[in-house]
Amino acid sequence: MKKTITFLTDFGLKSNYPAQMKAVALSITNAQIIDITHNVTPQNISEGAFLLKTSINYFPIGTTHVAVVDPGVGGNRKGIVIVTPRQVFVGPDNGLMIPAAETQGKYQVFEIKNKNLMLENISNTFHGRDVFTPVASHILNGVEFNEIGPKKDNYVKLNLEDTTTDEKFLIGKILHIDSFGNVITNISKKELQKNLLFQDKLDIFLGRKKHRLNFVKSYDYVTKNELLSTIGSSNYLEISINQGNAAEKLNAKPGEKIKINID
Amino acid sequence: MKKTITFLTDFGLKSNYPAQMKAVALSITNAQIIDITHNVTPQNISEGAFLLKTSINYFPIGTTHVAVVDPGVGGNRKGIVIVTPRQVFVGPDNGLMIPAAETQGKYQVFEIKNKNLMLENISNTFHGRDVFTPVASHILNGVEFNEIGPKKDNYVKLNLEDTTTDEKFLIGKILHIDSFGNVITNISKKELQKNLLFQDKLDIFLGRKKHRLNFVKSYDYVTKNELLSTIGSSNYLEISINQGNAAEKLNAKPGEKIKINID
Amino acid sequence: MKKTITFLTDFGLKSNYPAQMKAVALSITNAQIIDITHNVTPQNISEGAFLLKTSINYFPIGTTHVAVVDPGVGGNRKGIVIVTPRQVFVGPDNGLMIPAAETQGKYQVFEIKNKNLMLENISNTFHGRDVFTPVASHILNGVEFNEIGPKKDNYVKLNLEDTTTDEKFLIGKILHIDSFGNVITNISKKELQKNLLFQDKLDIFLGRKKHRLNFVKSYDYVTKNELLSTIGSSNYLEISINQGNAAEKLNAKPGEKIKINID
Repeated sequence: MKKTITFLTDFGLKSNYPAQMKAVALSITNAQIIDITHNVTPQNISEGAFLLKTSINYFPIGTTHVAVVDPGVGGNRKGIVIVTPRQVFVGPDNGLMIPAAETQGKYQVFEIKNKNLMLENISNTFHGRDVFTPVASHILNGVEFNEIGPKKDNYVKLNLEDTTTDEKFLIGKILHIDSFGNVITNISKKELQKNLLFQDKLDIFLGRKKHRLNFVKSYDYVTKNELLSTIGSSNYLEISINQGNAAEKLNAKPGEKIKINID
Repeated sequence: MKKTITFLTDFGLKSNYPAQMKAVALSITNAQIIDITHNVTPQNISEGAFLLKTSINYFPIGTTHVAVVDPGVGGNRKGIVIVTPRQVFVGPDNGLMIPAAETQGKYQVFEIKNKNLMLENISNTFHGRDVFTPVASHILNGVEFNEIGPKKDNYVKLNLEDTTTDEKFLIGKILHIDSFGNVITNISKKELQKNLLFQDKLDIFLGRKKHRLNFVKSYDYVTKNELLSTIGSSNYLEISINQGNAAEKLNAKPGEKIKINID
Repeated sequence: MKKTITFLTDFGLKSNYPAQMKAVALSITNAQIIDITHNVTPQNISEGAFLLKTSINYFPIGTTHVAVVDPGVGGNRKGIVIVTPRQVFVGPDNGLMIPAAETQGKYQVFEIKNKNLMLENISNTFHGRDVFTPVASHILNGVEFNEIGPKKDNYVKLNLEDTTTDEKFLIGKILHIDSFGNVITNISKKELQKNLLFQDKLDIFLGRKKHRLNFVKSYDYVTKNELLSTIGSSNYLEISINQGNAAEKLNAKPGEKIKINID
């Protein structure tokens, strides 16, 4: 099987930044290049972490992921490589890649120090191109992990599923709005099952409004244009409209708080 | 020549759904992966059918297309494989792939039944990843068509060019608005020639307005910012503005009715 | 190393035009296909030229670029191939590829005339698919440059860095707004250094407003949400907001004039 390098960024497809990264990659390695997405909401590390985490385990063992949602570029934040038993992650030390790595067992973190693995001229604003992509490409070519730099124990953590509960509510947040307007929360199927017996309705609070929604197996269990809640294809609670746009209807945004009645 | 798998969906590029499908494909087959588009208007089967039909014949013999515009996912609609003398199509049984297949001669339809060709866990909302992509990838690897499932005769049909005529008008609809704002109709060059002698002006009715437009060979036969009609690069009647956005000016939307005066 | 063909267009990713071009390419050549971008502002040749110029030198020697921002398609403008000592460019004769070619030393221009290198049916509105992509693909397969057509000396020029100075101002324009809202000007680092001694503030005039901005090494040298000026990753002067969208705040558009106080 051909080796694979993936890219996940918040650069957008209007810019040529993704193309610059791919050009650097194909100048160093013959791995095939796959985009995860370049449309993470700018600087939204949680959304990037969610999209990375829910993509990677469909890729083969040995895939190397370059992830760049990097508001701290050019400042003090470090660049790191995370090595799991299955795959490799290259990007900023800001938590972005941790939820993904955690799905693949015990992992090690290396700080990127070796200038021989970077481009010759390193800009202050684009380490994705000048540092992370060449490092990932050299790793795909067989560079040993201990050549990257020293092991790092005090890296930045991120818990996507940082929900809380009180007597009445399970409280989470919106991670991502997809292109259909499905509102994807950070409340996992497991977390929901821990707090609620089987229900066919959920009381969901978003902004100042309460919605009593059918909790169903898939979109077309409700009539067209009806709001519903479901466990989405990534195993998180989603709010959707059958053949409509729930995010528009609810005016929902990534990062917003969501509460589920559990009493 | 390298084998090719293509993807056409309404998933958008903000989500990681296209990446999940590609990851599944490259885990099974070493075919090269090409996107047709992921920006079909959500749930607009006609637009998806148009974009598929007008792309496929530029691809080599043996190309396998995964097409997912699938409002009925998780419900009763079946998954099908269509085999033509030239290419293979995998997706929902909702008409989406029929106009494409019809351009390639006599075809056979198989219902997807064989669970060995699918992912182990099948979600209720994402058959593109869990069913259609693995089936297409196994076909590219040489699985026989009769292993997919039984032949199916009562599949859903779709006629993109369902225009009508009365004494005065040839009546069609808008299939697609491209990124330039060109308004592409379902009125083919052939249909237009059948109903009209050569004209250098067309009277076109859209919404409540009548437009008397030059009918020209290409955009720059009219002055800058002037509305025009032409046969576009896919052999359908288009309404355009030379160096401008016709859809914005006309407030045109996919699905809207359009009438051409033919008396 | 595998041969590479790239695409830069203003076709957008809603259409299937990029897919049609890629299908034509992979039917002729086994070069790998990389998108630079398909989201150039429609018909904005300067922006396309900027995005091409700032991408190409990350690609290997021998890469062949198809560039299509082509308001004159179907009219009198010629199709050309530009051959530099490092790479090859195929597209319209409207200046689009000149700034890119100039970064690679002495170049030759050939007019595309040989119909054997084109598709059989040539539409009036889509030479990217019918002419430029097949020509580029045949070049990657080894066709000699003198088989393309005659050498051409009177091709259209384009100077991206056409800034002017008067006693008080260095005057340029906006080339590109990236997905973060960074406002990228046509004032190069070199031009700025020629006209200004080292400064830690710049007085910048945009529209009717004057902005006194910190001139810093990277975004996070200022506080969050503060406007700043910097030399971006492509070595042009940029106006940005740390973790915010400068183009929205300044209501800036590609093509607009910008003035820097230099007295």
